[in-house]
Amino acid sequence: METRVRRIFDELENPLDAVVLLNGTEPQVDKTFFYATGMHGGIFEGCAAVLRPDGTLSVLSSQLEADIARSQDVPVEVFTGKEEKAKALERLLKGVRTLGINGNELTYAGYRQVVEANPDAEVHDVSQAIVKARQVKDAAEVEMIREACRIAVEAFEELLPSLEVGRTESEVAAELNYLMQTKGASGPAFSPIVASGPNAALPHHATADRRLREGDLLLIDFGARYRGYASDVTRTMVFGKPDEKQRRMYDVVLEAQQAAMDVMKPGADGKAIYELARDVIDGTEFKGRFIHGLGHTIGLAVHDGAGMGSLPGTTLEEGMAMTVEPGIYLVDYGGVRIEDDVLVTADGIEVLTPATREFLEL
Amino acid sequence: METRVRRIFDELENPLDAVVLLNGTEPQVDKTFFYATGMHGGIFEGCAAVLRPDGTLSVLSSQLEADIARSQDVPVEVFTGKEEKAKALERLLKGVRTLGINGNELTYAGYRQVVEANPDAEVHDVSQAIVKARQVKDAAEVEMIREACRIAVEAFEELLPSLEVGRTESEVAAELNYLMQTKGASGPAFSPIVASGPNAALPHHATADRRLREGDLLLIDFGARYRGYASDVTRTMVFGKPDEKQRRMYDVVLEAQQAAMDVMKPGADGKAIYELARDVIDGTEFKGRFIHGLGHTIGLAVHDGAGMGSLPGTTLEEGMAMTVEPGIYLVDYGGVRIEDDVLVTADGIEVLTPATREFLEL
Repeated sequence: METRVRRIFDELENPLDAVVLLNGTEPQVDKTFFYATGMHGGIFEGCAAVLRPDGTLSVLSSQLEADIARSQDVPVEVFTGKEEKAKALERLLKGVRTLGINGNELTYAGYRQVVEANPDAEVHDVSQAIVKARQVKDAAEVEMIREACRIAVEAFEELLPSLEVGRTESEVAAELNYLMQTKGASGPAFSPIVASGPNAALPHHATADRRLREGDLLLIDFGARYRGYASDVTRTMVFGKPDEKQRRMYDVVLEAQQAAMDVMKPGADGKAIYELARDVIDGTEFKGRFIHGLGHTIGLAVHDGAGMGSLPGTTLEEGMAMTVEPGIYLVDYGGVRIEDDVLVTADGIEVLTPATREFLEL
Repeated sequence: METRVRRIFDELENPLDAVVLLNGTEPQVDKTFFYATGMHGGIFEGCAAVLRPDGTLSVLSSQLEADIARSQDVPVEVFTGKEEKAKALERLLKGVRTLGINGNELTYAGYRQVVEANPDAEVHDVSQAIVKARQVKDAAEVEMIREACRIAVEAFEELLPSLEVGRTESEVAAELNYLMQTKGASGPAFSPIVASGPNAALPHHATADRRLREGDLLLIDFGARYRGYASDVTRTMVFGKPDEKQRRMYDVVLEAQQAAMDVMKPGADGKAIYELARDVIDGTEFKGRFIHGLGHTIGLAVHDGAGMGSLPGTTLEEGMAMTVEPGIYLVDYGGVRIEDDVLVTADGIEVLTPATREFLEL
């Protein structure tokens, strides 16, 4: 994982002697611990990693997961209990004068442990550099994301025959999670959004007990988690024949998505791409009904740090994995969103989620 | 939620003017935010709560979840964007001289937001008081845990016919998650541990692709999540007729569990109960093979703060919900664990997970 460690140091504004990462107790997980160490197959609660500018790192593991930690490609020291952990951390941080922490994913209690391990070090929150480093994926990460995407697409295709009038949104979500897990996912990347009828007008609808009905728009936003990495896909379907308005909504969203995809490549500006897609929608009778960003990077986090939206700051780079997800939302009526995951390549993008983008009639 | 807010202040060593809770972005969730506000049905990313000694509280919600936040039983103020949130927090913390934070569940970045909102306040980490307050459940919490337990037990019973030689551990886990979700769980409380054959000797086995075989011990450790609350159950079964050793392991574990349950009541010492159960096992040929704690409180977290184990410090109180989970682990052979969830009542316990404790032959 030398390259990933170096990558983090390369993004620092000022050089530091070391960066320390403390993985907490679920849900207080530091995904950057998993990124920098490449560790997988365990939850590694209470484990720590110290990263150094030369690309080396040391991992502290609790006794409980010592075997699995030792089986990985990193140097591991095992501790039993809080005191041993504190001493080991003190030893690892000895002589460090300038120390980076990951303030976005470190708890305040963890921060206090760091300060106690080396009270003399000057502590800097380097979470912005970490976010930056994680945005561009390396080959191993791309493979995990590719697999998470494959699982999601296959599960979706297998789900289709079971989408019947009368089933509840929750049942559909349960079925989808089941299919993803049997196809190799450790679980869903997030709780699926299954939004039917008017619920489809709410981008963050909480899946519940509404039953699917004839004429409904059905929007399903879901993803698989594979070795820590997430996919994030949305498809919108209709029960029966779409009426004119539903068809028109779908066509406009698809056009907006394609317009964005057509210009995505290294060097392109995220805000400009968002505006391009938004303008496609705003040039129709659905003006003003695209009410969220166009996309975000995916990785260990479903929202992995960068985005294409109304805020400036993202320039596409080769190796970024991103969602492209325009939508139209009509309150009390319904909504359409089409979301795919793409990888930014040397001269454009590769779509990682090749599920049909036709308007499916169920 | 006045009682819960008061409860937290009651546990403080020194009085404070206010306690602030910042819920982060998944997975950096502050479950105490959900505890103190009683909010549910959303993820409430980036939301905040300020609690006061008189039992009142104020919630800051982002625009994205404003509707659902407003539908709850708490006063809500809505913000759009980081700057508005910072200003609202500044206003809410104005005049506060002594301020509590929840260091176990607050990120360092969140801590900096608090300091910037009121640089003059003396900040205290009150996470220990919070852990204490959350250990004893109120009636509403008991209902959620009861439901999480009911779902787990029913799902397990429905799972049984599908436990067949040749299926993989992962398939069993997927099936169990599916059953829990269709019975009303929002999802599993944690990734189920499905450990077959020699894998059952590893208390934290990572469920994988081993296929179930004739003669295997099969250990399944799982739980449902319902409105944020967790259950946590383990059953061990055998494929075919148990041999003498398997039968004996099972009987000893069951005896240890029952011995613990028989003495659990308000005022009982957690360490003493653990030792009682351990001594049952250590009085047999399986001496030394019970290698973890006897139980832990459950609630919004699967490990909700207190435990019965080798460390002192837990005295049972009426209203605590706890696991009771002795086990015997024989490396390279297999293991048996039996885990139930119980509620400490006025004069003993009530078992919340009435799945059969007979040694099931599959």
